[in-house]
Amino acid sequence: MFKLTFLGTSSGVPTRERNVSALALECIANAHAKRNTWLLIDCGEGTQHQLMKSHLSPNDLSAILITHTHGDHCYGLGGLLASLGMNRRTKPLTLIAPKAIAKLLDTLTIVSELQFNYPIDFIAIEDNLERELPLDLGDNHRILIRLHTLSHRIASFGFEIVQTLDKDKLLMGKLKTDNIANKYWHEILKADTPLSLDDNTINPRDYKIHTQSTTKIVIAGDNDTPSLLTQAVKDCHALVHEATYTDDVMQKIVSKPADQGGFDPKHSSAKMVAQFAHACHVPMLILTHFSARYAPFDDETAKQPNMGHIRKEVESYYDGKLVLAKDFLQVAVGLDAIT
Amino acid sequence: MFKLTFLGTSSGVPTRERNVSALALECIANAHAKRNTWLLIDCGEGTQHQLMKSHLSPNDLSAILITHTHGDHCYGLGGLLASLGMNRRTKPLTLIAPKAIAKLLDTLTIVSELQFNYPIDFIAIEDNLERELPLDLGDNHRILIRLHTLSHRIASFGFEIVQTLDKDKLLMGKLKTDNIANKYWHEILKADTPLSLDDNTINPRDYKIHTQSTTKIVIAGDNDTPSLLTQAVKDCHALVHEATYTDDVMQKIVSKPADQGGFDPKHSSAKMVAQFAHACHVPMLILTHFSARYAPFDDETAKQPNMGHIRKEVESYYDGKLVLAKDFLQVAVGLDAIT
Repeated sequence: MFKLTFLGTSSGVPTRERNVSALALECIANAHAKRNTWLLIDCGEGTQHQLMKSHLSPNDLSAILITHTHGDHCYGLGGLLASLGMNRRTKPLTLIAPKAIAKLLDTLTIVSELQFNYPIDFIAIEDNLERELPLDLGDNHRILIRLHTLSHRIASFGFEIVQTLDKDKLLMGKLKTDNIANKYWHEILKADTPLSLDDNTINPRDYKIHTQSTTKIVIAGDNDTPSLLTQAVKDCHALVHEATYTDDVMQKIVSKPADQGGFDPKHSSAKMVAQFAHACHVPMLILTHFSARYAPFDDETAKQPNMGHIRKEVESYYDGKLVLAKDFLQVAVGLDAIT
Repeated sequence: MFKLTFLGTSSGVPTRERNVSALALECIANAHAKRNTWLLIDCGEGTQHQLMKSHLSPNDLSAILITHTHGDHCYGLGGLLASLGMNRRTKPLTLIAPKAIAKLLDTLTIVSELQFNYPIDFIAIEDNLERELPLDLGDNHRILIRLHTLSHRIASFGFEIVQTLDKDKLLMGKLKTDNIANKYWHEILKADTPLSLDDNTINPRDYKIHTQSTTKIVIAGDNDTPSLLTQAVKDCHALVHEATYTDDVMQKIVSKPADQGGFDPKHSSAKMVAQFAHACHVPMLILTHFSARYAPFDDETAKQPNMGHIRKEVESYYDGKLVLAKDFLQVAVGLDAIT
């Protein structure tokens, strides 16, 4: 199971309500754990400030993934890494990012004379495309990350993140039929070799079955071609994708002459992502990275651009579960995987 | 006259109450102006977020001055410059900073494929030490900046900023003695060449005197040797200086063995700055850049480190006007210059 906490949901510039992009992904293997290992996807300026306001501990941060190198997705990285060092972090941090991020960190290290007292395991996305990157979260908890190329004004990538949880479940009927006392059940669940109970020896494997549950989420960077994720979203529980504009606003920006501020932002409209998610039967679509012009209220009849316009556009093309992200919103994905 | 607005007053890392270093300096030539040109001194991460919460408009920002290249003083620069561009700024921006900042901007430009649509006039501090840098703020309003070398773990600098306002004042007694009608006074104040009034011609210079008022403020970067500013603070109205720790806390950090986290932070204690300001007769001492350990409340008797400890220490050595900065505090300096 994953739990998302959005730390920034604005495109390009921060607003009073939304910081620039960052998303925490807690990887939950045990519903009763008080703290979970988490990954940070993107790290816009002010992400460390948002973290201070959240329930997340930097000590439980295992990896940072950067989708692309536009400032609103990575200018908080230097500050966060420096602060982790000042907080005396010693455990390693995995950094999965475009190669250019290594260049940025090299420069920050020289310019600020930074010294990290923890190892940073840098994995260049460009060298690992379409491969499976296993990430060990400790306690036999592993996830797999696959990297996908997207289309934007700058090299941009999406992450397909898969958690597989192995679990044994007791066969209650058989335990009762064979009169195995209640007090042994926990021991049987944990054992792998024959167990001596009172007056007989049993094979614990006869009294339980092995189950495996998989949760998959796809988290995309800026992207004007959702169909690049067709393979990635197969059997996913949720897709997190940008929807910077409604379609009419995007068409206006693209069709305006360059000398009047027109350009191709190479973003997706809400409509484009909704159509893609519908065609691919994505069960949960989580949209984020909204242009600052969209006010945070929801009123589809208002003239002022607002979240109601985005919502209404998506609902015309997609009938799965829709979530419009806002800062500090938490979303559970694959809850059945741990229950 | 200057008006300071503190945008960040924490050392090293942000806290819930204090962001990392940034300070806005409004240069006020006219007490009735609704908006004033301002300079930004240091630009820690999240400075653009703090600006959104202040009364300051990025359109009125004339220059950014960076004291040194530790992250808590400059990691907000990339985001702010990019946002100025996205807000369609076209007017030039002066950037007075250590040379390494040019390297950082070069890298950000390459990594994020940034294109600024406004000119950045970069002035390397190392090439202009002890020189006078004039800064034209428009409307005949000029200030002078002198750069001073400080002592820290990394090259660090202080700024001596001088505003000189020229003003003509009418000689009321002579106007009345010569029976010059009231209706001409404004014209006489503005004129430089002989004026024909009713039946005679007068030289306007005979009816006014030229006055000049100077306001000087010294704003220092991180520094463990306040006496490096002895010349700079001569006749200043105010000194803004770091006071990262009280003296006892600093002595503990310095004397601790390295393997237990001891090191020389090369900062000033409150005592050191207070003694210096007292010796140099600085009329107003504004302290900032406090270690995150100091809670924002003021209780000199409490065990928990707090602003009361800093205040008490300063008051033992300095009896001028003391200001302990906090985020969004505004301080007027040289009010008499425009009244």
